[in-house]
Amino acid sequence: MTTQGSVHDCNSIPRIALHGPGPAPVPPEVLEAMAQPVLGHLDPAFGRIMTEVSEHLRTVFRTTNAMTFPISGTGSAGMEAAIANTVIPGQPIVIGVNGAFGNRLIDMARRYDATPIPVTAPWGETISDNDIADAVDKSGAPVVAMVHAETSTGIAQPLQNLRKQLGPDPVLVVDAVTSLAGSPLEVDDWGIDVCCSGSQKCLSVPPGLAPITFSARAVAHAAKRSDARTPWYFDIGLIARYWTHDGGARSYHHTAPISMIYGLHEGLRLVLAEGLEPRFRRHEEAGRHLQQGLEQRGFRLLGTKATRLPQITAAATPPQIDGPEVRRRLRKEHALEIGGGLGEDADKILRIGLMGHGATIDAANAVLTAIDSVT
Amino acid sequence: MTTQGSVHDCNSIPRIALHGPGPAPVPPEVLEAMAQPVLGHLDPAFGRIMTEVSEHLRTVFRTTNAMTFPISGTGSAGMEAAIANTVIPGQPIVIGVNGAFGNRLIDMARRYDATPIPVTAPWGETISDNDIADAVDKSGAPVVAMVHAETSTGIAQPLQNLRKQLGPDPVLVVDAVTSLAGSPLEVDDWGIDVCCSGSQKCLSVPPGLAPITFSARAVAHAAKRSDARTPWYFDIGLIARYWTHDGGARSYHHTAPISMIYGLHEGLRLVLAEGLEPRFRRHEEAGRHLQQGLEQRGFRLLGTKATRLPQITAAATPPQIDGPEVRRRLRKEHALEIGGGLGEDADKILRIGLMGHGATIDAANAVLTAIDSVT
Repeated sequence: MTTQGSVHDCNSIPRIALHGPGPAPVPPEVLEAMAQPVLGHLDPAFGRIMTEVSEHLRTVFRTTNAMTFPISGTGSAGMEAAIANTVIPGQPIVIGVNGAFGNRLIDMARRYDATPIPVTAPWGETISDNDIADAVDKSGAPVVAMVHAETSTGIAQPLQNLRKQLGPDPVLVVDAVTSLAGSPLEVDDWGIDVCCSGSQKCLSVPPGLAPITFSARAVAHAAKRSDARTPWYFDIGLIARYWTHDGGARSYHHTAPISMIYGLHEGLRLVLAEGLEPRFRRHEEAGRHLQQGLEQRGFRLLGTKATRLPQITAAATPPQIDGPEVRRRLRKEHALEIGGGLGEDADKILRIGLMGHGATIDAANAVLTAIDSVT
Repeated sequence: MTTQGSVHDCNSIPRIALHGPGPAPVPPEVLEAMAQPVLGHLDPAFGRIMTEVSEHLRTVFRTTNAMTFPISGTGSAGMEAAIANTVIPGQPIVIGVNGAFGNRLIDMARRYDATPIPVTAPWGETISDNDIADAVDKSGAPVVAMVHAETSTGIAQPLQNLRKQLGPDPVLVVDAVTSLAGSPLEVDDWGIDVCCSGSQKCLSVPPGLAPITFSARAVAHAAKRSDARTPWYFDIGLIARYWTHDGGARSYHHTAPISMIYGLHEGLRLVLAEGLEPRFRRHEEAGRHLQQGLEQRGFRLLGTKATRLPQITAAATPPQIDGPEVRRRLRKEHALEIGGGLGEDADKILRIGLMGHGATIDAANAVLTAIDSVT
């Protein structure tokens, strides 16, 4: 086949330093992996890559769950797979809400005829374990869903003691889209049953995959729901035959996104080569450096030192600074992307990500210097 | 950041000639496009790429539908988005079933509490327009779903006269996963309301995106359903704000799979540079050459000359040939992938794809020669 017009438009794609709320910068090794020759989704060589992806995801999620794999969609697809495989139509689900992604969980749960019971805190604050446990006691909810790292506010919700408060019964679903591989997350130790994430945040892989893990208990819970309306594409009972397959032959569910899985495979290799603890420290150092610099410049950070995530910082602009104009100028004059706010007062908030490959003190300084030059 | 262990496993990925039912071979330009620097999902430069992707998809789907874009998942995600945005809980949906993918549509429709009314033909045969129209008349179904190119059997379902038989009312959903860009498909002329496909077949892009188009009528139908349970991730009412946005600012729904969209953008450029008619002819010539060669070797092809697709051929093996063994040896000795059957008698069927970049007479000869050497 001859291909006409060999200059393709993609060569003109600008290089932008990605310091918004995601996608994060992608290291060249990952992009190179994605350009490797495509294999069939049932090819034995691809099966070996899948096995390694699951193994590496277990290491990063800190779990032994067999059912650990990427959903073939972006982070929100992982959130929906987590909800769709756990909620029971007509029954309550307790959902912690202190930002945009808690609200998204509510929207998703309603679509499966579950009854969301929101336990709220103001945006920028954390939710009390007691309030969650009380809501479960009062409602008898079989499922609790929490956002670990609220990308809309940059706040970490402490989860290490929640299971103790909840007791053994409710299925605990956690959105770890922005925390996985960036700050400590202990799926097994914290008693999390379902944990979902995205490839494009602290894993530093392009958007397109949603790593997820289900405890054996969550898998049994998903299967025994009698009136479930799980979408076919997200049904872990079907996906299991392809991804976990109990050591037998993998059988076809959907045609997996081969090139994206190459990218995730390589991204996970880089994460493990660095080590989780050093990676968390790197995020911590870069994020704290940025946060200090922003406070020195009159930005008001959401939350407290104890609750702020290092990888994503939400900062309210001082009165003299026009947030959207700063973002436009950073993009235009400095080839630098940072994000705006979500929800109310979105224009008064800047969100700055130092995630994955982009979590360095140098990057923090580059962002601060660029902000100085446009304000 | 330093990256340890610079030899990554992906460099050891074998080059396999992909002639199964998908994924199809991917031209180097597309892989190169996917390795371009990642942009943010709201970056203006990425917005321009999105606009071009929608424009080019309209050309390939042969439609003027504004709501034309890729779903951020693989082909099956597109099928589910098509079903989830059209079915009405408690109401019938007429579904043509003459292979595995018709059955999949039934499975999907049930999950939204619609009542599937299957109109069946034996695997390998086509479904009569009259039977479909009768089923609609009897049931009053507001939605009809058909598979245009049954990947499980290699059969083309003629759709050019169905709308006339149906009259103007029912919303017509068509799965064109294997036909788009490989054989004629006329979304507007044939009165199709929703048409979904996959990136990894005749478009020759890696799996991971599901091009889809909705007529204005289908968009209105989706919005007015009172008891809809559309998954959040597939809800075209929400996705529209990001992809079609009526000329205003694109607003965040989910973080789009940037690199995959680069690949689709480049893949579509190659399709349009070749031209649809020459591309269909290329598929036709390669497929007919393969089919003739298979018949000469004693394979029995499903369907008739008039109903067989050129891009995917399902062939029943002669008694002396062991299908699974042939596939293993082709993969091992010839670095060549072909597929097995789906459903009953799967082991007696070989499925051979000559799709997209792989649809050439040379490829057909290579497959035939390799089969000769192992049988």
